[in-house]
Amino acid sequence: MTFRVTILGSSSASPTPRRNPAAHALNVHEQFFLIDCGEGTQQRLMRAGINPQKINAIFISHLHGDHVYGLFGLISTLGLQGRRTPLTVYAPRPFDEILACHLRYFDSQLPYEVIWQEVETRKHRLLYENKVLEVYSIPLRHRVPAAGFLFREKEPPLNILKEAIEQYGLGIADCAAAKRGEDLLLADGRTIPNESITYRPYRGRSYAYLSDTLYSPKAAGLVQGVDLLYHEATFADSDKALARQTGHSTARQAATAALKAGAGRLLIGHFSSRYKDETVLVEEARKLFPQTEAAEEGKSYEIPLLKTKR
Amino acid sequence: MTFRVTILGSSSASPTPRRNPAAHALNVHEQFFLIDCGEGTQQRLMRAGINPQKINAIFISHLHGDHVYGLFGLISTLGLQGRRTPLTVYAPRPFDEILACHLRYFDSQLPYEVIWQEVETRKHRLLYENKVLEVYSIPLRHRVPAAGFLFREKEPPLNILKEAIEQYGLGIADCAAAKRGEDLLLADGRTIPNESITYRPYRGRSYAYLSDTLYSPKAAGLVQGVDLLYHEATFADSDKALARQTGHSTARQAATAALKAGAGRLLIGHFSSRYKDETVLVEEARKLFPQTEAAEEGKSYEIPLLKTKR
Repeated sequence: MTFRVTILGSSSASPTPRRNPAAHALNVHEQFFLIDCGEGTQQRLMRAGINPQKINAIFISHLHGDHVYGLFGLISTLGLQGRRTPLTVYAPRPFDEILACHLRYFDSQLPYEVIWQEVETRKHRLLYENKVLEVYSIPLRHRVPAAGFLFREKEPPLNILKEAIEQYGLGIADCAAAKRGEDLLLADGRTIPNESITYRPYRGRSYAYLSDTLYSPKAAGLVQGVDLLYHEATFADSDKALARQTGHSTARQAATAALKAGAGRLLIGHFSSRYKDETVLVEEARKLFPQTEAAEEGKSYEIPLLKTKR
Repeated sequence: MTFRVTILGSSSASPTPRRNPAAHALNVHEQFFLIDCGEGTQQRLMRAGINPQKINAIFISHLHGDHVYGLFGLISTLGLQGRRTPLTVYAPRPFDEILACHLRYFDSQLPYEVIWQEVETRKHRLLYENKVLEVYSIPLRHRVPAAGFLFREKEPPLNILKEAIEQYGLGIADCAAAKRGEDLLLADGRTIPNESITYRPYRGRSYAYLSDTLYSPKAAGLVQGVDLLYHEATFADSDKALARQTGHSTARQAATAALKAGAGRLLIGHFSSRYKDETVLVEEARKLFPQTEAAEEGKSYEIPLLKTKR
């Protein structure tokens, strides 16, 4: 039951020799999601050993090229490889027009459908849901409409406590009812509350992607308690005027967001190419939020399963 | 007086973990030209130590994504870096429409002009000329309109033979006339033909890029005597039906083109990802044309200056 994010790109607007533009891959229970798709993403997926065909859906934070230019090559390659499964792209308006341009000039014979789902960047909404995962939009503050994403693993089904089975002599029907969350009604008329006979085998994990954005206390509040927060840190605090002017955050502001969100760990990235070495940014963030790491190209960050021992 | 081609990408339609889609950089006397621009080209330029701002002009062979998708990121990055010099892109129709889409959605505030020059893919024409270089279109046979390019260094200015200066007592005016190609008129009425008193210090070099294409004897004829021929070799001869069907060449056909052109050396590339190892393709080509090499990512191929010893 994997919950793992792989950094495919962590540069800001222009790539550097070492860093690709923005793209993250998320593996939740062996279902794959792509978050942003900067130039070079398809090759980075291959290098990370992630089969591009396995991608369930793509989430685009905003329509700046460094978050989008890799999508066209990826769409083409999926078609060349014979994909038939529709691919849903969650992105702000006017992604539909951009997609139409692409399909008209480059992929008019695509063997699968690309479905656009609008992300209303000012709204905190449930965008996607499957058996194990929910994805929410998180409004951001950038130069163009932008939204981050919160990926929240659903709470697992209830398990029955072994000692309860013995104590109350639970049958199959009792267990099924308890797993549905019902209380237990005993023959002698007593009611045993559900929480006395069941437990959650683990707690749901979460990952939030907040990029590109100014520091937003509101966004931090919306990802409260997140296990792993990725927050852009384009600049150092000494360049905070530039950060404000360009709609970006400093490393210190990223750490402030992590603190405010009560995040478990903070991953910073989207580094401006002006910093030859991102150590200065990591150190700045760690002063406020010690559990900070710099996103490393090609590296995977696992959110371990925390089993509830009963 | 450099004449050097650097391979930035040599995969076919889809990149592989090792190979990027098509892009070559040509350095002629420290003036830089880009030929095709597959996804990832801007990063490959950086890694090859070529400043993207130094690019004089871009030549696009055809409008398939694997030859174009890197252009959008490159155009954006040049703008972010503050380019003011117009950039000319030579490409077939309807590149103008594709460019308009790009500018509308991603680069409406670009600080420099991107100028489109149409390449009429059925015509062998002089497309570009400067003091030292001429670039010609070479009609190709692909699934969509496509043209290759011949880069031909101009013949250098005439030098005066030292022994002629002595023998005929040439003055400044005589030398200037001889350098213009004029014969020498002696006081006694004799005429000394220009070729007896001048020489070319070196001979002009040339590079041809023929990709993507079926084997075309006509194209090979148009690059007659080329020093370095890059010819696509997407498939092995055992897959020649597939090559024909997709509008590509086999390694054997690439070698046939090099033979027919009387090329100095042959570089093959645009390898299908089905070949885990391109040795089979190189060996196949070498049977017909021994001076064959497989294009290697990031590697530069120099065409040395051949001095005319006098």
